[in-house]
Amino acid sequence: MTDIWVYVALGISALSYVVAAYFYQWVKKLPTANSKLDEVGSLIRQGAFTFLKREYRILSIFTLCVAAIMFVLFPSPIWSDNVNLLSNLSMVGAYIFGTVLSALAGYVGISIATIANLKAASAARESIQKSFMAGFRGGAVMGMAVVGTSLAGMAIIYLLSRDSNVTMAFSFGASSLALFAKAGGGIFTKTADIAADLTGKVELGIPEDDPRNPAVIADNVGDNVGDVAGMGADLFDSNVAAMAATMIIAMALGEISFMFCLTSLGLLASIIGVLLARMGKNGNPSRALNGGTYITCGIFAVLTFIASLVGAYDLRMWGAAMVGMVAGVIIGLTSDFFTGDDKKPVAKVAEACQSGPAFTILTGFSYGLLSALPALVGIGLAALISYKLCAPLGEGYAMLGISFSAIGMLSIVGMIISNDAYGPIVDNARGIAEMAGLGDKVLEITDELDAAGNTAKAITKGFSIGAAGLTVIALLGAFQEVVAAAGTRIVFDLMDPLVFFGMLVGSAIPAVFSAMLMTGVSRNSQLLVSEIHRQFSTIPGLREGHATPDYARCIDIATVGSIRELIPAGLTAILATLAVGFIGGVQAVGGYLTGNIVSGLLLALVMSNAGGLWDNAKKFIEAGNYGGKGSDAHKAAVIGDTVGDPFKDTAGPSINTQITVVSLVASLSAVLFLTYSLF
Amino acid sequence: MTDIWVYVALGISALSYVVAAYFYQWVKKLPTANSKLDEVGSLIRQGAFTFLKREYRILSIFTLCVAAIMFVLFPSPIWSDNVNLLSNLSMVGAYIFGTVLSALAGYVGISIATIANLKAASAARESIQKSFMAGFRGGAVMGMAVVGTSLAGMAIIYLLSRDSNVTMAFSFGASSLALFAKAGGGIFTKTADIAADLTGKVELGIPEDDPRNPAVIADNVGDNVGDVAGMGADLFDSNVAAMAATMIIAMALGEISFMFCLTSLGLLASIIGVLLARMGKNGNPSRALNGGTYITCGIFAVLTFIASLVGAYDLRMWGAAMVGMVAGVIIGLTSDFFTGDDKKPVAKVAEACQSGPAFTILTGFSYGLLSALPALVGIGLAALISYKLCAPLGEGYAMLGISFSAIGMLSIVGMIISNDAYGPIVDNARGIAEMAGLGDKVLEITDELDAAGNTAKAITKGFSIGAAGLTVIALLGAFQEVVAAAGTRIVFDLMDPLVFFGMLVGSAIPAVFSAMLMTGVSRNSQLLVSEIHRQFSTIPGLREGHATPDYARCIDIATVGSIRELIPAGLTAILATLAVGFIGGVQAVGGYLTGNIVSGLLLALVMSNAGGLWDNAKKFIEAGNYGGKGSDAHKAAVIGDTVGDPFKDTAGPSINTQITVVSLVASLSAVLFLTYSLF
Repeated sequence: MTDIWVYVALGISALSYVVAAYFYQWVKKLPTANSKLDEVGSLIRQGAFTFLKREYRILSIFTLCVAAIMFVLFPSPIWSDNVNLLSNLSMVGAYIFGTVLSALAGYVGISIATIANLKAASAARESIQKSFMAGFRGGAVMGMAVVGTSLAGMAIIYLLSRDSNVTMAFSFGASSLALFAKAGGGIFTKTADIAADLTGKVELGIPEDDPRNPAVIADNVGDNVGDVAGMGADLFDSNVAAMAATMIIAMALGEISFMFCLTSLGLLASIIGVLLARMGKNGNPSRALNGGTYITCGIFAVLTFIASLVGAYDLRMWGAAMVGMVAGVIIGLTSDFFTGDDKKPVAKVAEACQSGPAFTILTGFSYGLLSALPALVGIGLAALISYKLCAPLGEGYAMLGISFSAIGMLSIVGMIISNDAYGPIVDNARGIAEMAGLGDKVLEITDELDAAGNTAKAITKGFSIGAAGLTVIALLGAFQEVVAAAGTRIVFDLMDPLVFFGMLVGSAIPAVFSAMLMTGVSRNSQLLVSEIHRQFSTIPGLREGHATPDYARCIDIATVGSIRELIPAGLTAILATLAVGFIGGVQAVGGYLTGNIVSGLLLALVMSNAGGLWDNAKKFIEAGNYGGKGSDAHKAAVIGDTVGDPFKDTAGPSINTQITVVSLVASLSAVLFLTYSLF
Repeated sequence: MTDIWVYVALGISALSYVVAAYFYQWVKKLPTANSKLDEVGSLIRQGAFTFLKREYRILSIFTLCVAAIMFVLFPSPIWSDNVNLLSNLSMVGAYIFGTVLSALAGYVGISIATIANLKAASAARESIQKSFMAGFRGGAVMGMAVVGTSLAGMAIIYLLSRDSNVTMAFSFGASSLALFAKAGGGIFTKTADIAADLTGKVELGIPEDDPRNPAVIADNVGDNVGDVAGMGADLFDSNVAAMAATMIIAMALGEISFMFCLTSLGLLASIIGVLLARMGKNGNPSRALNGGTYITCGIFAVLTFIASLVGAYDLRMWGAAMVGMVAGVIIGLTSDFFTGDDKKPVAKVAEACQSGPAFTILTGFSYGLLSALPALVGIGLAALISYKLCAPLGEGYAMLGISFSAIGMLSIVGMIISNDAYGPIVDNARGIAEMAGLGDKVLEITDELDAAGNTAKAITKGFSIGAAGLTVIALLGAFQEVVAAAGTRIVFDLMDPLVFFGMLVGSAIPAVFSAMLMTGVSRNSQLLVSEIHRQFSTIPGLREGHATPDYARCIDIATVGSIRELIPAGLTAILATLAVGFIGGVQAVGGYLTGNIVSGLLLALVMSNAGGLWDNAKKFIEAGNYGGKGSDAHKAAVIGDTVGDPFKDTAGPSINTQITVVSLVASLSAVLFLTYSLF
């Protein structure tokens, strides 16, 4: 009987696949404008799949190595007396299952995104509404598939094992793959974007997406592998991690069924939301995207309220989920304030651009720093309120409240992914339209759709950082739970020097991790810039548009470069966790996770928002303010945007995943730390 | 008998005054080159004192307001039954005493620095050794006076009150004044520096310190009010705070006398160190500065070891102090690695400058992020080892160990201030030499002395951030002690949502604080740039050097601007502490302080080191690498340096003080939070 919601979850997951398949067919059946379009589209598609194949090849080797290590160590080392090889095998199986599903999420995303981009470009010749629908439904295929897969995966893992170690291994599989996918894709996309901008827009003065630019296809490939595939893997991971943390805490309390209730109904609400989403005759695309988000929230609130009453779940638990959801919306709105192009910060940064690049950077970075406050207060309050709300239900429920609020914030993740994937699809549509010469009217429409994507992204990014914040607090609770299950009740006392030591080290890790990713982007884009210069100087007629550049060579450079960079950064974070654990034991790890969360959230917020702010300040100037395109202010804004690119699309969003991975590594290794540690 | 070291402290403080007076006379008696020099010097001196006067006027009003509030509230609100008005009055007295001494530290600094700069410039005509001695002994006047004053102040407070509340009030006075002095001076100096560079070097192509530039005097005034007076107040504050935290913890254990032993012998070691410091015939100034630091460390180690044996102090406590000292040196060396102009990071950033300003920023910021790791690990390890070292001595001793390691790290603060103040003095000497036309040979010498100042600064900055880190950990212990004294033993459990809430909010505060300061710099320097443009367009003959610019107007703009900005940033940090305390009580405040420490240290390290790195990368290019002055790489480097200026001289170093102030506010208000809080 308590399993009923697990089966409902499987059913709704199946429904989400049906919707995804329907949208997939719907998008695929849209006509393409001309053969030039198909040609450009297939170049992008090939490039994206080539990257994915090479990335996944490296990652499968990595996964197998980790699987071997896991088999030897978890849950009990094979040399210990109480080892049960079947348990070790189950964990390895769950881990591999997690990586495969996470990889699949990226794969599905690219498959649909590289079709939907063409269709959206073509549809823009007819009307903005049609083009919007192509972009949005393309994104929704991914949204439905990702959330359906994560929910079904979790339900299957639960039904087969009912074991928290196996759940963790599954989540770790999803997260570790997401970490590398996000980092690798993030490095690729910004390598290509920066190199294309610097050579094309700045040096040669040719427009964005001009087909003469050798890096232009790589840039569009980047949108897919970074923003679509990477983001898909990332939100797959957040969603799985939130559920895993909840399950670990809920299992001891017998409240598993409410978790599946929340997540199933969240997916159902998202399904209804994406089916209803539509752009009115004279409506604007931003309103359509955000409207969909609010409607989904409303449906989720009503459905879960009814389910709580019917299932006789305590309304405090429902309240915790609501607190999370509302906090998500508020955090999203504040991040919209700091990055929205109709708000004061963007105008101020654009104004500072007139005084040169140094002021552009200082002003944008300062606003980025300020933007962290409301989001951190929001996450803190959500955690505090949901904890206090559920504390009266009994011991252990308070922490469960926090994890329910994370689930609540992620409830509408299906809608969020749809909105998020919409962005790079219409961005690509714009590029394809330019390259295929579909004319100014089409460019105007795709520009408007693209701008709406940027605004929606601010809100969804707020959601995802907020959710990651609550999730990792819950994961910290899960870590404590795991240690307790091993027989040691610990309190992480801030005045314990091991905790403090761990905290200081932990706080440095997101900084080091970001630095490694950003250095990777710098290094690779400098390589790519050299290659572009080489092509312009050795291919006759390229500058005049009489010759075709060697697009493939640029894609290759970005691919090789990002694959070389993606492993070290992720590995550093994992190894630091193990080092702290083997030096300072579980106390130090508790501190380490906390330091990691605190500085990770801060840096993620600062970088994401500062990056978005610079991007929109540039667009604000390009819209004709402060001298418009080509003015000195615009040049300064381009420099700000270039700095912001790896901030917002490489380092910032990867930090979430880094925190999750580190938390899971800690929980998995907790018993080892208890047994073998220096202090 | 246990008070003997307190009297020794008073004696050695007196000795330090004698040395300061001797150096003062020595520097003053050096000849000045010509009347033009005196004229420029007096403009700078006047400007500095005008700023100081206006700043102190505002701050005295602020101080009186705070004093009134303190009288009403501390240690017990005057409406409570057990109030003792004499206690409240003592606290107010100690608070005012702290502010006055802290202000005095700044005043003494400016008095000597604005003489020593002239003398160092003049002496450079004779030899580099003589010029070095003028700069160094000028700095040493300040070093001796600041440390002597803080030690004597602490000894007096202890002898008069023997009360931890009064000690805290004294420390709060020192810190709150330091916070505003540091912020105000930091905004002033960077406002003038950036505006002078942007208009002079970048727009007009005239050299640094060219007398035609209207902001040139303001720039030199800034070196004094920001780098000398602000720094003096800052290290006065760190030193007092470390002693206060130690006293609060040590008082309960009866170990006060060892604290005075360490601080007295530290000052004695510094006195010997500065008396011995000398530049060899063919020696280089960097070696002279760093050599002095190492010698002082050695003397301190030997003296305190003997004193421990003679006084029968447990060697574990001595060990804790040594751990702090060694950690300080190591942290200093790592920060030297990240900012030194002969090391890899500077070369890499300079190389990135060739690819434009965006890469300059990205590469420098990435190295800044990386640089946080070794320092944070160092602070964490120092805390951990000193804690474990002293834990066997009994309950409460472990935390005392951490505070002794902070004292150990600050033991040689007299030497550190001397080195630190040397920097702006010789920097000023260079400016004065340029303005008074003392010729190329003098400029060459002052350039070399200036470069040595930058290198020494990296090491001393490592020391001061490290010491602040340990001090605030000790202050956290002091906070817990204060709460315990009020009858509530608390454990700051990381899993307590109040602690977590406080931590998230606390981590945002240094970000907000830095953002406010940097925005202040941006805003004011834009104003100042407009004024400079106005002067060039309305004063005929200015560009050709036939007319004198209106220096005073520029000084006035920088003064008014920075005074307007200094109060809000500091007040925000203080009010946020009170808000968190009244919402979440002492648990939330414990988390808040921790979050503040973690993110504050991280941001301070990243900003200070990235700023130093950009500065030195610019100098590296100016030395003829990658195209040298005027090349595109140089232009990019100037942009990096401009971004780095408020990072390293306004926001970065003010964060230390912000953390200290917030910790003291928390301890002072602990009882209020226990009585009146929402949760």
